[in-house]
Amino acid sequence: MRQPDHGGNLAWAAALAGCYADAIVDFSASISPLGPPQSAIAAIQSQISNLRHYPDPDYGELRLALGHFHQLPLEWILPGNGSAELLTLAGRELAELAATILITPAFGDYYRTLRAYHAKVLEFPLLSAEERVLRNECKLQQILKTQHSPLITNYALLLNNPHNPTGKLFTREEILPLLAQFALVVVDEAFMDFVPPEEEQSLIPLVQEYSNLVVLRSLTKFYSLPGLRLGYAIAHPDRLQKWQLWRDPWPVNTLAAAAAVAALEDREFQAQTWQWLPPARGQLFQGLTSIPGLQPHASAANFLLVKTQQSSVQLQQQLLQQHQILIRDCLSFKELGDRFFRVAVRSHSDNQRLITALSAIVKNSVDT
Amino acid sequence: MRQPDHGGNLAWAAALAGCYADAIVDFSASISPLGPPQSAIAAIQSQISNLRHYPDPDYGELRLALGHFHQLPLEWILPGNGSAELLTLAGRELAELAATILITPAFGDYYRTLRAYHAKVLEFPLLSAEERVLRNECKLQQILKTQHSPLITNYALLLNNPHNPTGKLFTREEILPLLAQFALVVVDEAFMDFVPPEEEQSLIPLVQEYSNLVVLRSLTKFYSLPGLRLGYAIAHPDRLQKWQLWRDPWPVNTLAAAAAVAALEDREFQAQTWQWLPPARGQLFQGLTSIPGLQPHASAANFLLVKTQQSSVQLQQQLLQQHQILIRDCLSFKELGDRFFRVAVRSHSDNQRLITALSAIVKNSVDT
Repeated sequence: MRQPDHGGNLAWAAALAGCYADAIVDFSASISPLGPPQSAIAAIQSQISNLRHYPDPDYGELRLALGHFHQLPLEWILPGNGSAELLTLAGRELAELAATILITPAFGDYYRTLRAYHAKVLEFPLLSAEERVLRNECKLQQILKTQHSPLITNYALLLNNPHNPTGKLFTREEILPLLAQFALVVVDEAFMDFVPPEEEQSLIPLVQEYSNLVVLRSLTKFYSLPGLRLGYAIAHPDRLQKWQLWRDPWPVNTLAAAAAVAALEDREFQAQTWQWLPPARGQLFQGLTSIPGLQPHASAANFLLVKTQQSSVQLQQQLLQQHQILIRDCLSFKELGDRFFRVAVRSHSDNQRLITALSAIVKNSVDT
Repeated sequence: MRQPDHGGNLAWAAALAGCYADAIVDFSASISPLGPPQSAIAAIQSQISNLRHYPDPDYGELRLALGHFHQLPLEWILPGNGSAELLTLAGRELAELAATILITPAFGDYYRTLRAYHAKVLEFPLLSAEERVLRNECKLQQILKTQHSPLITNYALLLNNPHNPTGKLFTREEILPLLAQFALVVVDEAFMDFVPPEEEQSLIPLVQEYSNLVVLRSLTKFYSLPGLRLGYAIAHPDRLQKWQLWRDPWPVNTLAAAAAVAALEDREFQAQTWQWLPPARGQLFQGLTSIPGLQPHASAANFLLVKTQQSSVQLQQQLLQQHQILIRDCLSFKELGDRFFRVAVRSHSDNQRLITALSAIVKNSVDT
């Protein structure tokens, strides 16, 4: 079986580990371990009898809930079959411009969607001065200025914030000047909801001021529903109406729409997540740091990028076969290759299990 | 509220009828009244706890079940988020050719997907000699031959079989010669599974012989799961691999994939559907024929196109407001306009309720 391009491929992992898929402890997909919230499950259950009807093609109730959540009028919101569907629509739009700038390492699906529409890609490395990143001194403007290519007005920027796989959070103030420089700025905020409200740096409050800004959001990571597929785009209504004509009339299934409405209202689940993440991430960070040869990056998201002196593919294989634990290798990020892996932050006991397993493997490899 | 382009828009209908959406008897969406099958519902229930994981991006189990059902290797099958998603991918492919020929009246979403990729469209009317259709003498070759445009090899054909909205079934033998004439033939068989096995005319058995043939299928009409979104394309593996790169990696949600596997194995539900449809359709056809001013077309599908001397929009409104019954006006089929409507075949009692309501409205309008 081929090494997968994305995390969360349990069918592949189970085959390699020689166990059932549900025995795998999955650190490879950056999904919250707290969910799905009971409120979302109840909403799904209540709508099963409604599957005999088409979804409302206007997704009125869903867009109302999203509009309420973000304090935006409905017309600025387009729900999609996962944010991945909306990324594909963004790719078509990006391809109409002279080039799209990616901050690398970049999520593999960015390349897929840009290639799908023959967009020209320019890469600006975030990790060229890795130490700066570790000291959190790496500013977007610096990255873009240190490169030789002039920024002209028909260029686009496709940015991940928090950045995947490093977990770096760019500030709103850092991104703001770029909105004047680029013809189109697409900010993928798939992990932004993991950042507590007092620290988050979403550009959604700026969308009504900048018609060249598109924000992509996911509902499946924070609410642990990646099997259900639900994301949304926030952008100028004219742009979203155009996108709507590029795709089929019912992209979001009825159960996903209902789950989203319930989840957005579940303030208790949201608060629990913000209480869980910082200490759990701290625990995992400390535990990984204590293992010789491993060096995690500081992260604002629910995952950690880890530099490793050993082959990450080898570590992945040993963790699977000896401990039924799946980590995300970074082979699909071509700048990282075999000396990095990514792990999701999970529960205290799962995090400890990973740390113990990694310690044992590393100790064994030193001993032998 | 704007008149909807598709059937099944219950939010719109309920607002017009002044009742809850679930009080509407929906004849506008061509969905089986027998489903969803219990087997599919049980499969959905069993997978809810699995929503915390991403779907298998290879959809191995689903494609295995589809392959088994159609006796085809997996590589020839691409599942999608409703056949509508796959139609959009087909649209991109069709747009690469000089022109796409549509047999009109054509499903509105064909125009949407072809416009989305700036494809050139040539229209060939099926109903130009309506009597021929009623006498079932209308052959595809005749339609295409009576037109002045020469058929050249970089033209494509996008065909619905059975045809929507007329319900006409083209035979395999009629379509076969067209596979030699056109660079690409896309046959949308969204309603083919309603045709009993001994009469069906699917082109799926020919797919391995003709690399320029694409068959689109839906699972949501026959199994009454349009809210869940599931369809598939059958075509040459090279073509499907290309399509896969044009879209996101997880288009089909976990519950839809599980429901499909269960439904395909549910031979009892399939047999029940083939037992129900012909007599129910006959009852509805006879009932409509007996109402002055209404003339239904013979149909091989689970819907009937009805010619009406009264305005269909007016009939639609009266049925909604007086009887909470929703029929499909044909305004989105520009050749048909206000003198046609379409109704799904439903249960014996629902069909009777429609016939009684229509009789009362027509009688009233004659009396006044």
